[in-house]
Amino acid sequence: MELGAGPDLVSYGRTVKRVAIIGGGFAGLAAAKLLRRAPVEITIIDRRNHHLFQPLLYQVATAALNPGDIAYPIRSVLRSQQNARTILGRVVGVDVEKRELELADGSVPYDYLLVAAGATHSYFGQDQWESHAPGLKTVEDALEIRRRVLSAFEAAEREADPERLTAALTFVVVGAGPTGVELAGALSEIGRLTVARDFRTFDPRKLRVVLVEGTDRVLPPYSPKLSDAAKKQLEGLGVEVRLGERVTAIDEHGVSLGNERITARTVLWAAGVAASPLGKMLDAPLDRAGRVMVEPDLSVPGHPEIFVAGDLMHFEQDGQFVPGVAPAAIQAGRAAARNIRALVAGEATRPFRYLDKGSLATIGRARAVGAIGKLELKGFFAWWVWWVIHIAYLIGFRNRLSVMIGWAWQYFAFARGARLITGRTWEPAERASERVESSV
Amino acid sequence: MELGAGPDLVSYGRTVKRVAIIGGGFAGLAAAKLLRRAPVEITIIDRRNHHLFQPLLYQVATAALNPGDIAYPIRSVLRSQQNARTILGRVVGVDVEKRELELADGSVPYDYLLVAAGATHSYFGQDQWESHAPGLKTVEDALEIRRRVLSAFEAAEREADPERLTAALTFVVVGAGPTGVELAGALSEIGRLTVARDFRTFDPRKLRVVLVEGTDRVLPPYSPKLSDAAKKQLEGLGVEVRLGERVTAIDEHGVSLGNERITARTVLWAAGVAASPLGKMLDAPLDRAGRVMVEPDLSVPGHPEIFVAGDLMHFEQDGQFVPGVAPAAIQAGRAAARNIRALVAGEATRPFRYLDKGSLATIGRARAVGAIGKLELKGFFAWWVWWVIHIAYLIGFRNRLSVMIGWAWQYFAFARGARLITGRTWEPAERASERVESSV
Repeated sequence: MELGAGPDLVSYGRTVKRVAIIGGGFAGLAAAKLLRRAPVEITIIDRRNHHLFQPLLYQVATAALNPGDIAYPIRSVLRSQQNARTILGRVVGVDVEKRELELADGSVPYDYLLVAAGATHSYFGQDQWESHAPGLKTVEDALEIRRRVLSAFEAAEREADPERLTAALTFVVVGAGPTGVELAGALSEIGRLTVARDFRTFDPRKLRVVLVEGTDRVLPPYSPKLSDAAKKQLEGLGVEVRLGERVTAIDEHGVSLGNERITARTVLWAAGVAASPLGKMLDAPLDRAGRVMVEPDLSVPGHPEIFVAGDLMHFEQDGQFVPGVAPAAIQAGRAAARNIRALVAGEATRPFRYLDKGSLATIGRARAVGAIGKLELKGFFAWWVWWVIHIAYLIGFRNRLSVMIGWAWQYFAFARGARLITGRTWEPAERASERVESSV
Repeated sequence: MELGAGPDLVSYGRTVKRVAIIGGGFAGLAAAKLLRRAPVEITIIDRRNHHLFQPLLYQVATAALNPGDIAYPIRSVLRSQQNARTILGRVVGVDVEKRELELADGSVPYDYLLVAAGATHSYFGQDQWESHAPGLKTVEDALEIRRRVLSAFEAAEREADPERLTAALTFVVVGAGPTGVELAGALSEIGRLTVARDFRTFDPRKLRVVLVEGTDRVLPPYSPKLSDAAKKQLEGLGVEVRLGERVTAIDEHGVSLGNERITARTVLWAAGVAASPLGKMLDAPLDRAGRVMVEPDLSVPGHPEIFVAGDLMHFEQDGQFVPGVAPAAIQAGRAAARNIRALVAGEATRPFRYLDKGSLATIGRARAVGAIGKLELKGFFAWWVWWVIHIAYLIGFRNRLSVMIGWAWQYFAFARGARLITGRTWEPAERASERVESSV
């Protein structure tokens, strides 16, 4: 079954080029929108029906926001764009010779292809760590982390055994990049401010949040000065920051840092990135993380009709690797789309140039660090700038309003509005049986 | 491990009675709140960490609201009530002689017990129907229904085969009580107004929503006049109402009504109620649905220290069965709590008297029917009354605001804010493999 063109995309009397875009993230959507008036038929394919505003995903994981606040159906984003259609599907192969995508249940032919399939976590070859230390990439990941965090407090409330109580109140976050820093800060706040008032038996001061980082500072891409400011802000929130230490083991009882053992019920993974396996299907050179080494115009070497943008792209500029952040993905998606438009018009492509508009990382309520050009920000002002920028970028009016209200409420009341444990709700017995099984 | 009293509930010098409440629904929470100033120690036990505002659950299933809008942590509701503690746990047995609840991992002794464990769906002995026709009782149910409904539209967008396209666009709702009527009305609106604009290839006029009811009218508890008005409003929304017909089979391809076959990808179950299995553990007489036949004071025959309230209770008044609706649960929970308070004070219990304040059922955007005393309402005014009452009852300020904004937005923009497919996102291939397996 060929899924290329729907009945309303048939064109009369002219040859319309078919553009396939894999992935409805920042890069894919930015590219589709840029091609709004181009004489092309766009098919955007994603395994999920929603675009996810990933920079705020940690807020779902920490019970501040609902999934619906930060995710939006891709086909609604493209509702009014007549030359684009959306397919919910999984790409299982790319025939670069025939110029056709193989889906699990169909095929999509293309003249030009943009692969913006993103990245997932990497456990550095220790895949058995995944079940004990979930990462944060999807809505489901966020809900699973939320479930584990809230269930840990529920367990603590009932725990009579001092050792297991300590384990229930210990949270280890591995990796001090932006996601790790945000998670650690939010966890500490939840325990000390929000959740504490709801429970009767445990002492919130016993809460321990440990942030483990292999390099010698938090937020390694930032300047040493800002890294230091971020570390101080984290410590001000009660987070124990462990730099230059590597996790050597993770199991259901906690983590090992070399000889040291930290007993913890909840371990979260915010280290390591592995590119989408789609990179391997493109007949292209890859870097160690599986990212595609693209040409200056973002095309794949030897395939001028295939472009890569976003977290799947390996692009160096002035000797520096362009980071896997939303602004870079948006810029690259637009650059790739401009080059496709040029090729369709018979013109030459142009090299991509990443413009670093600055970056911000938030550390809990009213704390953040950031760099905008040469300007370095920290504390409340940095947090305020971060807040305004993120709201402004959020897609959809309703989401913006709902997120703002949620946050305003949370800020003034120290409340968290989305503290539901869904999925496997009733945890203690299952944990107990896991323990029995693993000790057998 | 005994979980009865936490360290902060130890009482000095006087005998404090222990009250256990099973279930944090409307009945259980109302009882706990009424006992706020009573000289008792309350332990409220629930398998879930949240109280659910069930009357609005269909709005989560139909993508209008987020789960967090209608659910709230039980322990937060009881945060400031010093004589109450909350336990996330599953009651697996009741020792009525020893006066002790057996939990999956502990025990809770009691002096007085209120069982308010509610009800779930009944498939009239056809349990194999459940996987093909999910019901709507929990947040997970609502998310599963949302996933199926949105996935059906996604499948329709890609479907070339006319027969499978018809199946994807056919929705059957079994049971025309309030939930069935709400679901059918909302589905018809989603297809014709909201989702239609997002898709390219299918014709929203081909959408078919069938509401099947075994009795001879919709909303059987209402007056024939209101039933008729509700039927007309449903038909005005394009719903096909089939009265006096019974479902004889449900499988993955659709439903059978006697000799007639309706091919449908999505079938939803809104018929049949089965009481919680906890009723069986109380050494008490049960009705056919498993509800406990209580004494006039809501106690269990032969056990004046055990009370039952809410959907698990079978209570007749003036020859009429008190219905399983939220106002009845709240009133019964409060009556049971007053009787427990009386027993603690050495006084006599009083019989329960249900005061029917009226009932309202909504049928899509700006349509509803209702009866308040002798006053019968229909159309926009009924819907408006329904809306105000439901918002007013919602627990928690933030939820109220967020729900109101969500609805205002939806009303003016015909948009639905929570259209995420989560869980098993990528459906078509799985459906295909299910078909293969079932045809083997």
